[in-house]
Order: sequence, then C-alpha cells, then structure tokens
Amino acid sequence: MPSTRTETDSMGAIEVAADRYWGAQTQRSILHFPIGVDRFRWQRPIIRALGILKKAAAQANAELGELPPDLARLISAASSEVIEGRLDDHFPLVVFQTGSGTQSNMNANEVISNRAIELAGGVPGSKKPVHPNDHVNRGQSSNDTFPTAMHIAVVEQLQQRLLPDVSSLRDRLASKAEEYRTVVKTGRTHLQDATPITLGQEIGGWVAQLDFGLAAVRACLPGLYELAIGGTAVGTGLNAHPRFGDLAAAKIAQLTGQPFISAPNKFFALAAHDALVQTSAGLRTLAGGLMKLANDIRWLASGPRCGIGELQIPENEPGSSIMPGKINPTQCEALTMVCVQVFGNDAAVALAGSQGNFQLNVFKPVMVHNVLESIQLLADACSAFNEHCAGGITPNLPRIAEHLAGNLMLVTALTRHIGYDAAAGIAKEADHKGLTLREAALASGLVTAEQYDAWIVPLAMTRPG
Amino acid sequence: MPSTRTETDSMGAIEVAADRYWGAQTQRSILHFPIGVDRFRWQRPIIRALGILKKAAAQANAELGELPPDLARLISAASSEVIEGRLDDHFPLVVFQTGSGTQSNMNANEVISNRAIELAGGVPGSKKPVHPNDHVNRGQSSNDTFPTAMHIAVVEQLQQRLLPDVSSLRDRLASKAEEYRTVVKTGRTHLQDATPITLGQEIGGWVAQLDFGLAAVRACLPGLYELAIGGTAVGTGLNAHPRFGDLAAAKIAQLTGQPFISAPNKFFALAAHDALVQTSAGLRTLAGGLMKLANDIRWLASGPRCGIGELQIPENEPGSSIMPGKINPTQCEALTMVCVQVFGNDAAVALAGSQGNFQLNVFKPVMVHNVLESIQLLADACSAFNEHCAGGITPNLPRIAEHLAGNLMLVTALTRHIGYDAAAGIAKEADHKGLTLREAALASGLVTAEQYDAWIVPLAMTRPG
Amino acid sequence: MPSTRTETDSMGAIEVAADRYWGAQTQRSILHFPIGVDRFRWQRPIIRALGILKKAAAQANAELGELPPDLARLISAASSEVIEGRLDDHFPLVVFQTGSGTQSNMNANEVISNRAIELAGGVPGSKKPVHPNDHVNRGQSSNDTFPTAMHIAVVEQLQQRLLPDVSSLRDRLASKAEEYRTVVKTGRTHLQDATPITLGQEIGGWVAQLDFGLAAVRACLPGLYELAIGGTAVGTGLNAHPRFGDLAAAKIAQLTGQPFISAPNKFFALAAHDALVQTSAGLRTLAGGLMKLANDIRWLASGPRCGIGELQIPENEPGSSIMPGKINPTQCEALTMVCVQVFGNDAAVALAGSQGNFQLNVFKPVMVHNVLESIQLLADACSAFNEHCAGGITPNLPRIAEHLAGNLMLVTALTRHIGYDAAAGIAKEADHKGLTLREAALASGLVTAEQYDAWIVPLAMTRPG
Amino acid sequence: MPSTRTETDSMGAIEVAADRYWGAQTQRSILHFPIGVDRFRWQRPIIRALGILKKAAAQANAELGELPPDLARLISAASSEVIEGRLDDHFPLVVFQTGSGTQSNMNANEVISNRAIELAGGVPGSKKPVHPNDHVNRGQSSNDTFPTAMHIAVVEQLQQRLLPDVSSLRDRLASKAEEYRTVVKTGRTHLQDATPITLGQEIGGWVAQLDFGLAAVRACLPGLYELAIGGTAVGTGLNAHPRFGDLAAAKIAQLTGQPFISAPNKFFALAAHDALVQTSAGLRTLAGGLMKLANDIRWLASGPRCGIGELQIPENEPGSSIMPGKINPTQCEALTMVCVQVFGNDAAVALAGSQGNFQLNVFKPVMVHNVLESIQLLADACSAFNEHCAGGITPNLPRIAEHLAGNLMLVTALTRHIGYDAAAGIAKEADHKGLTLREAALASGLVTAEQYDAWIVPLAMTRPG
Repeated sequence: MPSTRTETDSMGAIEVAADRYWGAQTQRSILHFPIGVDRFRWQRPIIRALGILKKAAAQANAELGELPPDLARLISAASSEVIEGRLDDHFPLVVFQTGSGTQSNMNANEVISNRAIELAGGVPGSKKPVHPNDHVNRGQSSNDTFPTAMHIAVVEQLQQRLLPDVSSLRDRLASKAEEYRTVVKTGRTHLQDATPITLGQEIGGWVAQLDFGLAAVRACLPGLYELAIGGTAVGTGLNAHPRFGDLAAAKIAQLTGQPFISAPNKFFALAAHDALVQTSAGLRTLAGGLMKLANDIRWLASGPRCGIGELQIPENEPGSSIMPGKINPTQCEALTMVCVQVFGNDAAVALAGSQGNFQLNVFKPVMVHNVLESIQLLADACSAFNEHCAGGITPNLPRIAEHLAGNLMLVTALTRHIGYDAAAGIAKEADHKGLTLREAALASGLVTAEQYDAWIVPLAMTRPG
Repeated sequence: MPSTRTETDSMGAIEVAADRYWGAQTQRSILHFPIGVDRFRWQRPIIRALGILKKAAAQANAELGELPPDLARLISAASSEVIEGRLDDHFPLVVFQTGSGTQSNMNANEVISNRAIELAGGVPGSKKPVHPNDHVNRGQSSNDTFPTAMHIAVVEQLQQRLLPDVSSLRDRLASKAEEYRTVVKTGRTHLQDATPITLGQEIGGWVAQLDFGLAAVRACLPGLYELAIGGTAVGTGLNAHPRFGDLAAAKIAQLTGQPFISAPNKFFALAAHDALVQTSAGLRTLAGGLMKLANDIRWLASGPRCGIGELQIPENEPGSSIMPGKINPTQCEALTMVCVQVFGNDAAVALAGSQGNFQLNVFKPVMVHNVLESIQLLADACSAFNEHCAGGITPNLPRIAEHLAGNLMLVTALTRHIGYDAAAGIAKEADHKGLTLREAALASGLVTAEQYDAWIVPLAMTRPG
Repeated sequence: MPSTRTETDSMGAIEVAADRYWGAQTQRSILHFPIGVDRFRWQRPIIRALGILKKAAAQANAELGELPPDLARLISAASSEVIEGRLDDHFPLVVFQTGSGTQSNMNANEVISNRAIELAGGVPGSKKPVHPNDHVNRGQSSNDTFPTAMHIAVVEQLQQRLLPDVSSLRDRLASKAEEYRTVVKTGRTHLQDATPITLGQEIGGWVAQLDFGLAAVRACLPGLYELAIGGTAVGTGLNAHPRFGDLAAAKIAQLTGQPFISAPNKFFALAAHDALVQTSAGLRTLAGGLMKLANDIRWLASGPRCGIGELQIPENEPGSSIMPGKINPTQCEALTMVCVQVFGNDAAVALAGSQGNFQLNVFKPVMVHNVLESIQLLADACSAFNEHCAGGITPNLPRIAEHLAGNLMLVTALTRHIGYDAAAGIAKEADHKGLTLREAALASGLVTAEQYDAWIVPLAMTRPG
Repeated sequence: MPSTRTETDSMGAIEVAADRYWGAQTQRSILHFPIGVDRFRWQRPIIRALGILKKAAAQANAELGELPPDLARLISAASSEVIEGRLDDHFPLVVFQTGSGTQSNMNANEVISNRAIELAGGVPGSKKPVHPNDHVNRGQSSNDTFPTAMHIAVVEQLQQRLLPDVSSLRDRLASKAEEYRTVVKTGRTHLQDATPITLGQEIGGWVAQLDFGLAAVRACLPGLYELAIGGTAVGTGLNAHPRFGDLAAAKIAQLTGQPFISAPNKFFALAAHDALVQTSAGLRTLAGGLMKLANDIRWLASGPRCGIGELQIPENEPGSSIMPGKINPTQCEALTMVCVQVFGNDAAVALAGSQGNFQLNVFKPVMVHNVLESIQLLADACSAFNEHCAGGITPNLPRIAEHLAGNLMLVTALTRHIGYDAAAGIAKEADHKGLTLREAALASGLVTAEQYDAWIVPLAMTRPG
C-alpha cells in the first residue's frame, strides 16, 4: 500500500498520508500553520461538536430533501464516529489558522467525506459518492458552522465539567459553613482586627460568592444556545434551505440534550461572538471569587506559628526542598494560578471579540480556545481543591479563641451604650497600654464589670440567627 | 468671623475652613491623600447616593425607634440638600483614599451633621444635637454604607444615562436598517468580497449586537439592586436594629424609584463586589459591539476615492490641519477611543474585585469610580455619535452598485447548480483574467446566459424576507 | 462689547465667545464632543507641551526662512503665554475627539494665532497677520505635532514628577533598610514561616524592586526623546522645510532641557506609539512592585492583636465609622488602588497602540491621557505614602522576637549536619506535639544541646554580611 | 519485574511506576494536581533548563568542596541526559502545582538522583549514594532554582527562537521596502485618502516598528541574565556555600553560552519576577506592532474588487467552504490571533507578578508558562507569515495608479502656494462635483495648468530621498 494518496481541492492536488482521512485543505493547513503544534491542536470538545453539527446537518438536509437519504446515512454514520472520538487522530489542525475556522470545518468535511466514502466502498479522495463541500457541507459555510461548533462545545463543557465541579466545591463549603456555624472568631477588615463573626458566616460568604459566580456563568447559557447555523456565508442563508437553520438546530438539541435554537439574527451570529465574550466574563467573575476564597484560606492557615493560623488544611506533600517539615497551601496556589490564567484568557477573548469587521469576526478559533481552556482549568482546579483542600479544612480552636480574647474591636458593642467617642478612648487606651479591653473599660469608669460582661458577648455580637 | 473652626475626632482636634460643613476626618483625608485631586474628586452620582442613603437610614432608624424623630428630621433635611446637589462643594475627597470609602462616608456624616446642627441652631463642630457617628451613621458602618452608595449611584447612572442614550442610538440604527432594507450591496468576510447582503441587513446586525450588549448590562441590575446596608462592620449587622437593613433598603427604593432590596448575604456584600465586576463586564461587551460598529462605519465610509466608500457620513469639521478639504470619521474615532477606555477601566475593576481579604474588599472606591466613568463615557459618546454621525449616514448608491457589479462571489449561487469545484474554477478564471463573472461563467460552457441571469439575482441572494 | 465674534474655517462661520481666543475648529469640537467634559479636559502637561512645540516650530521656521521674523516673534510670544499657563482657560477640549488630536492642535493654532493677532493690534478671527494654519501650523500637521506634544508632556512629567517622587520613596526605604539591618525576624514563603531574615534585608528587597521599576521607566526615555515633528501629514515631511524636523526638535530640546531629537523614521512615529506603550508597561511594572510593597507592609502591620503585627505604621486617621479606636493601613490601600488603576490604564494604552491603520494611529489622545494619568497618580501616591506611611514605619520588636522564637523553620540550619530527612522529622514532631524546636531536636537524640545552640543562630542564618 | 517500586519522602511511602525515575514528591504532585494535564505539562525549554541548572550546581558544589567529586560526576552525567531530552518522559508535572515550582524542582532532583543511582549501580528509591535533597539539591531551594530555570529557559527561547524568527521577517520586509522604494501610492490617515507615500516608505514604517519591538525584547535580556541561584529559601543563601551563587551562575553561563550572572539582590529575585513582567511587556509591544502590520497588509490586499486591493498576497488555500474561488488573508489572521493571545498571556503575567508576598512570589509556574508560550507562538507565527505571506507580497500597480490619480489630497502641495483656505476650497469643490483635482484647481482660477503640473508631482511629494 502506498504511503500517500492524492487529494485535490480548488488549488490543485496534494499528497496526504494514506492512513489519514483528511483531504487537501487539511493538508495545506498543516503545511501553512505550524504554529504551536504541540499544544494547540483542537481537543475533544471541538472535534465532538463538529461531529454533532455535521450529523445534524445531514439529517436536516435529508429531511428537507436537500440530500439523498443514502448519502445522509453515510455522512451520519461517519459523523457518529467523529462524535465518539474514534477519529480524533484525523484532526491534526491547530487553533492558529484561518480566523473563521474554515480549515477545521473542512477538516471535518474531508474526514467525514472520506470515511463515508470508505463505508460506501468508494475510493478515498474521489469525493464520490460523498463530496466534502457539496454534501457534507451542504447548506453550510465555515462562517456559520464553526461558530455553531463553538457554542456546542462550550455549552457541553459548561454543563458537563464546570458547573458540576464548581457546584461540588460550593456544596462542600456550604456543609462546612453549617458545621462551624457557632465557632466564634475574630472578623477582619483592612487586615485589621474587627468585630466577631462565626466561622460559618465567613465560609458562608464564600459560598454566596460562588453562587454569584455560578449564576453569572449560567446566565450566559441562553446566548450560547443560539446557533449561527443557517446563516451560511454572510448571514443571509444563501444556498441553505430556508428551514435548514431551525431544523439543524433542533437536531443538535436532540443529539446533545441541550435546548439549542437557531439564532434570531444570523448577521450578528457570524460577525460577533458576544455570547462567548460574556461567558468569558462570567468565568472571570467566578475566578475572581475563587481567588478571594483561596487567598482567605491560605492566609487563615498561615503560620503555623508566625501567621494567623486559625485554619488547618491538609498536609498533602512536603513543602520545601530545603526547609524540612514545611507544609504549604499548595492547592490554594494552584487554584490562584488558574484564576490568573482565566483573567489572561479573558483579556484575549474580549480583545478578539472587538475586532470583527463587516460580516465576520475572524478571531473565532482563538476565542473558543481560550473559553474552553478557562472552563477546563477551573473545573480541574476546583475539583482538585475540593478533594485535596476544602474537604479537610478544620478550625484551630485554641488559636481562634486566643485571638478572640485579645480582640479590641469587641469595644464596638459598647458604642450603643456609651457612644462612639468614649468607646474609641477605651480601645486606644487598651492598645497603647497593652491592657485587655475589659481592663481598659473598667479603668475608664464608664462601664461596670457587670455591664461589660452583659454587653460584650462575642457569639451574640455575630447575630448567629 | 474666623476663617477656621476646630473640629475633633478620636485622633484629636484639627482646624477646618469655617465656611465648610465637613469635619475632622474629612480634613485629615484632604491632608493625607493629595492624589489626583484635580480629576478624581467624587462627582454628583456618588454624592447624591450618599445623601439618599443617609436620608433613608435616618427615616428607617426613626421608624424603628433607634433615633429620636426630631434628630431624624434634621438629618433628613440636611440629606435632602446633599441629594439635590446644594452641598457638593462640601465633598472635597478623592477616589484614592481608604479602600472602604470610610472617609467619604464620614464626609457625608460630618456634612450632614453640621448642616443639621446649623438647621437646629447649634454650633457646627459641637456634634450636638446631631453626632456624625452616633446619629447620622446610626446602625451603619462605612463597610455597608459605601457599597450601598456604590450600587445606588451605578443603578441611577445606568437607568438615567447609559440605557437611554445607547437605546436611542440603537433605535436610530434600527430605523436606518428599515430604511435601507432593499439596498443590495457586497458582503465582506475576511475583508474580502463575499456574497451580497442588503444594507438593512448589515445595519440590522449592528442593532442585534447593541441589543445583546444592552441586555448584558440590564442583566446586571438585579445584582445591583441588592444593597449591603444592614451588614454594618463585618456583615453581622452588629449595632443595627435587626430590621434596619430591610427597612433602609425599602426607603432607598422609595427615594429612587428603583427596586432596591437588602442583600441576602451581607458577608458577601462587604467582602466582594461581583455585581460591579459583572456590570463592568457588561459595559465591556457593549463597548466591544460599539467598537465593531464604529469600525465598520469608518471603513465603509473610507475614501472618498481610494477606499471602500459605500457610506457617506456627516462632514462635521475640517479633518486636517495640513491637508485642505479632508474630512475624517471623527465621531467613530472618539467612540472607539471611549471603547478602549472602557476596556481599560474594566481591567482595573476586575483586578480590584479579586483582591478582597476576609470580611472586606478595600478597593471599593476605585471599582465604583471606573464603573461610573465607563457609564458616563459610553453614554456621552453614544449620544454624540447618534447626533453627529449615525443620524446622517447615507448610502453612496453608485459606489455600492459598482462594487456589486464586480463582485465575483456572486458565483456562490451557482454551486447548487454546477457544484463547488466547477464554480470555483469560474471565479478563479474571472479573477486571473480580469473578466466579469458572467463572462467567465459563459466561457466555461457550464452555464448558459439564461441560466446565469436566472440564477444570479443579487437581491434574491440576500433573502430579504 | 458683543458677547461673541465670528470665526471661520473651511466649513464656514461659527460664533465663539468674545473673551476666548479659540477659533472655529475648537468651537466645533466643543459642540461635537461633549464627552466626559467634567473630567477629561486636557490639563497643564499637554497644553504646556503644545506651547513649547509651537514656539519651537516658529523659531525653526524663522531660522529656515519659512516664516517672516516678525510673525515668528508674535507666535513665539503667544506660545510663551501658553507654556506658562496663562491661557489654560482657552483650551476647553477633551480627550475624546479626533483620534489624531487634530482639534487640540488646531486649538493651539487658533489660540496662538488670535493672541498673536491681538499682540499685533489686529482683529481676532481675521487670521491676519497670523494665520492659524499657514503660520502657526507652518510645516506641521496634527499627525506630527500631536505625537510630538505627547512625548514632550510625558517626558516632562516623568522627569519632574514620577522619577523624583518614586526615588524619594526608594531612598527613604533604603535608609530604613540600613537602620534595621540587624533586626532578625521570621522569613515567610507561601505565607508560611520560613528561615530567618533581617528586616533590613526584607526592606532591601523592596528597594531593589523599586530600583528595577525605576530603571524600567527610565529605559523608555530614549524612545520618548524621538519626536515625530518633521513628518507632517503622513511621514514624508511634505510642506515642511527638509531641515525643519531636526531644527524644531533642537529648539524643543533647548526649551525643555531634555535631549529631544527628530525621530529617524517618521512613518513609524505617526502610525504607532510604541514608545508610549513601553512607557505604560514600565509604569505597570513599577506599579506591580509598589503593590507588592504595600501589601507586604499592610500584612506585616496587620493586627494589632490577631494578625502578624511585626510592623507599626503611623496612625493617621480614625479607621472606622463604627468600630471605635480602629486604625487601618489607609496609605497602603490608596497606593494599591492607584496600582490597580495603572494596570487598567495600561490595558487601554496597549490596546489602543495595536489599533493603528496605514499611516496613522488614531488613538493618540486616549493613549497619552492614560500614560499621563498613571504618571500623576503614581507620583502623587508615592509622595503621600512616603510622607504619611513609609517614614513612620517601625518594627514591633517584642512581636518579632516572639515569632522568631517559635519559628520551626530554624530547623533548616540542621540539615547540613543531620540531613534533610532527619531534620524534617524533628520539625514535624515539634509541630504536631506543640514543642519548641529545641525541645524536639534534643528529644530526637540526633542533636545535643551544645550542638543545637551552636548551629541554630538566627542572625548568623541571615548572613547579614 | 514488579510494576511499581516504593519511594519515600518526609510524608511517608508511595508507589511509583517501576520504569519511571521520578520519586515520591513527583508522584504526589501527579495525584494532587490533575489540572490541564493534556496541555500544561512542562515542555523542553523548562526541562532542559532544570537539567542545566542541576549540572551547573553539581559542578559548582564539587569545586567548592560541598559535594564529593564522584557524586558530582554522577549528578552531572544524569543532568546531561535531562539537558539532551532523553528523560523528558520522566517529567510528568504540569504548570498548575505549587506556586514556587517546588514539585518540578523535586521532579528534577528525583529523576537525576535515581538516574545517577542507576549509573552507580544502586537501587532506585534508596537515595543512595545520591540523595535528591542532600546532594542534587545541595545548596539550593526551589525558591532559587525554579526562577533560575525560568530565566534560563526564557533566554534560550528568546535567543534561539524569537529573535531569529522575527528578525528574518524584519529583514524580508526591509528588502521589500528597498524593492518598492519608488512605487508611489496613496497615503491614508483616518482611513481616508491622504498625501502620497511610496510603498517602500510604507513597508519601511513596518520595519521600523519591528525594530522597536525587537529592541524592546532585547532590552529585557540583562534582567533575565540575573539568576536567583545562591539565594536558597528566602534570599539569604542559608545552607549554600557563600560563593555558590556566583560559581553556579558562571557554570550556567558556560553551559548555555549566555552571560548569566548571580543576581545582586536575591530577596528581590525570589519575591518578584519583574524581569519576566518586562519581557512579557516587550513581547506585547512586539505583538502590537505585528498586529498593525498584519492588519495593514490584509486591508491593502482587501478585495479583490470591492476593497483597497493595492497589494497581492499569496493564494495558499481555498478560502471558503461555500464561496468558490475565494482567497483569504489567512496568514494575517493566524498572526493577529497569535497577537491577541500574547496580549492575554501578558495580562496573566502582569497580574501574577503583582501578587507576591513577603519573601516569595508563588505564581512562578504560571508566569514562565505564559512567557514561553508567547515566545513560541510569536516565533512560529512570524516564521509561517514570513514564508507563506510576506515573501510573496507584490504591488497591484494598476490599482495603485488608479487610486493615486483620484486622490484629492494631492491638493496639499498647493497650500504653500495659495494657502490652506483656498486649497481647501478646491478639494471640496472637486469632491462635491466629482471633478478631478486638476479640473477643480484650474476652475478655481487660482492655479494655472503649468503651475499645477509643476507643483503636483506625487513622487516628489513623497520626498523619496
């Protein structure tokens, strides 16, 4: 068997490895875009989405009489193999290619065409009986298929990876908040000692922030459910059956179990990807919340003896190659590094999103790449953080008690009784003379011991509800 | 009359200009934070919001028995003057101060206290009968009041400035889309000639994108309606009446006509400002859409003779100090510069939003400053763009017709009849030999003149609906 | 006297307030760009730079025989008034205008023309004997004058504000480093206790970082010294005397005392502003270092009783409106907010810098605005921080000693004697059983008391040099 | 042979695949950080840099008497295999791990230790005769080794990839500039027709911008040459021989041929990575220039018939899956997408760089990852762009001539003769009446035909020099 076969496209002939299904345009892209090839090949989510799209398109075209049923069946069968991941080795292209994703759309068209030809007993590269453009790409353009695949991939990854993994972390923290709802501790504002809260309240604040971030991401789904399919080259739908967009979207919804629809304005759906920009922003908001949470945890666990030390976190690995016995908040560090990456990815997405011209935004691949990467990293990192850190957080009760006992800001409870100015004097006296708050309060002559003990009740001050 | 009077706080005494209502803490802030004083003083929206908040708080405290009715009335009267802008000269502080906005909260407390004292016939600086902390700040902390004012200011500016001004531009463009719904022109993808669209469709794509951006901003309102008030220092509500938060929020809703409520989780409301981060992201998405729109317009209006030249825009001013008669797309330039500024402001907001610690985020002032600036700039720029550019856009019909006549991508309509590969050959032949598409098509022998004229109908190709 | 006079330009006539020197184009800009007018009017640095430029141009043109000496003298005299700030009220325009800054260039041309006419006893608006374009703008275009003014303004602000103010802070810290060079304390990595350092070493690290940031900013000066002047409209220098660029740059150098030169490639000097992009990046690097420094200080000063508490910083103002006696690290907060703003400004500058087309980048005003704002804010904030925080930093010696005594990472000094694994066992034993390191070391049987005391000498471990 | 062996560290025992050299800490990292494993494993540059570092350290320690010569030889031999890439399969860790890179430092220590043990005929996992910490990591900490490896990797990639590949593109363009130095064409400012330039000048502007970007990157090398090695855990150099840092740096310089030195301030070298932040900024400036260049080229090549069309670029692949015969500027698109990614990566680097605390910045891995990715992508994309686009650019001379003939801004040459206002009138008249400039000029009566032809000479207007 020869090692290559000849494939052709409108530019002419080109040799392709005989054991690969791709055709001429994919091969040209390999040659012309050797950019980041070791890290930027498209991964499962996009390949799978292209398969789903091509299957749905074939089914819709058949139903509309645009494609003979037998060709549709062949395309559908080959597409199923793409969906299932059996042809991933036939998708060699990278992110940095044509800005419309044309070459990846053609990669799908070519692989499905050749695999379908093979299933039909034909000659790969012959384009018979299944032509990559006229049949697999029937009623489609890269300009509407690639953004359709972008939305499918992002929705699936959000639903299958990000939302479950972050929600699990959120739920774990919520149960911790419940568990520690009566552990009274020092609140801190401006990094300075403040009035008391419970550990449950503190953790509950993180939970509320994760809830906000999750909601921000979920709010992007409706925009992502709108698919460009049916717009073809410029949004008019030229060469597609008038009902193709709606029907293909319905097929995609069926194949994915997600409520995809055909976008109401196809011109916007090709020329801009604001749904991705918003999704990226939602992921950034979530990352901002995770950064705050991870920072709080590592600061509260700082020490063991020269820091705050109010929380204990799991000891997972030796912390230092030179300092024996050191334990570091490594899960917090990995998570905050992921958050930083999400911020960077988001900057790329928003910039790319603003650079469209006329009927097309040609930054499609780099946009979806960054959104998918952010999703994957956040899901992975939250999952690891949940398992290797959050689940093992415990309060260091003696340290918490020691801090609370010394906290001068308990004085705040006195202001309702003696006024702000007098209370401020007591706190300053305690601070400057190294007294306890109780000592300073009694010394002031403004408060009796009985009053002090009745008024300064830390747990009550937290209003535990 | 002496030029100064003595004001005091817990740090001691300090001289303040006799004709200013502010007190010791405001004066200290003036001395300690001479940072960007010529451009970063708080403006109307924040000052007004602080007035609304203080009035609402006084009313709520009175209703709850936390404040004597006469004091509440005095505070309310002074606050009304703040709301109306009559005391703006008494708010000298800048953005770059304490990160909780404490000094601006105290500025409000002090001004209202002294003005209320004056109304009561008392001695400014005496704190009698109205004390800035014990009365004006009753049941409050900077940590819950300042973020409350942030939300009030942002909601009012969104509702009164951004949403109306951008919507007006959107509506103007929508009517243009309707007006030009049958003007057929060349579509462009990858900056290259593509299949035809109508000018109405092109403008309609911009409208759809503005709709998306407006929806993204509106989707932030529910988060902004949630107010921190009632959380006091750390979120527990210590020193506030248990019903204070809800009641104060209701009063604020009444004063503003906006459906503000008390935030369900006050710990989150103090420690993070993700509603502002999301709002900033929504503004960024809107800015991205405006950037695309403004770029499209200036490119379509490029020329007059060596560019695309399909649109004419108003000639507002001489374009060049050296090239006589030059006219430039200056409104587009001002708008895109605003968009760039919004991108930068958003980067600041998101970074600031990720830097909270424990019970407080101390980047509050810089966050709200940037969000308000983005709102103002977008509103101003859209308003100017609407009036001085969008309203005067007209198609250059001869140029549009000339381009359409030469457009080789009309060939796409042939693919359904002769297949992609044959059609590609015709287009390439026309391009390389400088033929018209019709000439090349007929020369190919694949299409008759009758077929060509029946199949290549630009307006029909746009599917004008 | 009538309240207005009629001014004209190539668009026709327009009324201008009689007591203002500006002309028709400035007036049109006021009408067309009401964007951010309360905060975005050009300030001293740009106005002054335009004055310097126009004076230098008049002198150069006179010397080259391009302008009659008497007209040059009149222009020079009027320009001097602009330089000195006497005509600031005649510069009403804002940042968001034409992207080339044309209208501000014309504002300068018009004001100088009318003031020169006035000095000559002529009729303002008559353009005689001094025409704004033909004389004041002689041999110039907005496209080369505005970027020239940008560089002049930025260089002057760097030299007069940023570099001195940040250097003063740097020097203050350097003297603190020297003062505390033998104060041994706990080092911290990953927020966890680590091997000891001296306070002098810790502060010295901040100084080294400021030195790096200052060097990064200084490294941008050579790029900023290169002026676009002489390029006129597109970089060719059309209509300017061939020696005009060099001579005007020399005059500017003379007027400013800075080594400005004519840019070697004028096409690049008009079409891109990478020297500003790099300057912005240098300011961002400096801001990153200041953020680290300010964060370190507020964390080291955290407490007073429930934080790290190793540093004491000045008590400048009451910290809380509700918690009496609270003192917060407000200078650190203002400084970190400024750093965040600088990051945002930089994002805007870099984005704007990438958006040039052909012979012009039309984001000039927004670029220079953000760079100047970053310079001003960093200078102001470093100055305030230096005066109100850095100068008053003192170590809390008892707290430092207490922490050092408990620091288990002193164990690191044992690894050279007993190996990493054995040392790790001792540290873990101490941690888990709550022993001192000495107790655990002796209990291990691997170290004698004499050895321990000889090997574990904190000051020696810092290698104070 | 059993499939695993037992490895130990201070946390205890753990099983490792028998055919892998790594030890317990690497294995723990695999288990705890399953984050982005398919894309974020460390690649050649970092692995090689760790090998270089460990070899240099062993040599330095041997020379200083800190390590027996035979152990040093064994470590050196194993390190050479790491350098050469023979052990890449033994480096399984990803970017998102401990923020100090401790686990990758230990990965290197463990692999080198076990390979050295094997070379010595010992038992892998026994740590005899070569202990990963006591010998391979001798006088080192992750805190100084990982940043040292970061600098080595970045310098090598800059020198071997980025600078040559971008310089080749620059040189190609410079020769194009020379080739087309007399092709006169329309200049464009504000996207509008402006005075003429030559194509050589236009391309020369791109070359000058690339020169600036290259210089910005090169200016970062001195900062990158400074290595943290010798600082050990916190910067003091505890446990390292006092001369170790200098000597190890010298060995690294020898192994790499780059002038590395020991950083003068080790506290700064561990706690911040501003040299990387500046490098990232330099790459961003370069990317901004490439973005402008790629945009200019695709706009100048826009069309073929409805755009500017002054340049022709290579036809590399079919442009559209639906529009036959379409050719798109795909190399420009890939390059601008890379630029956008570099902007995003830079945002991540700068944010990470600002987040250090005390003696350590724990965002090291994410910082170096993004810098290396930006380097690789820019090098790859410039190389592809050079080969598949820049080399094939040719002017479309008829189109250029047609545009130039119609360009009204040639009028600028008249201003020196008839003044700005009169010239403006002529240009406007021509524009509004559709006349040629010559027709309008003569019709004005201000210019004779002879004068017109003498004054309006496009090539002369470009001052071709």
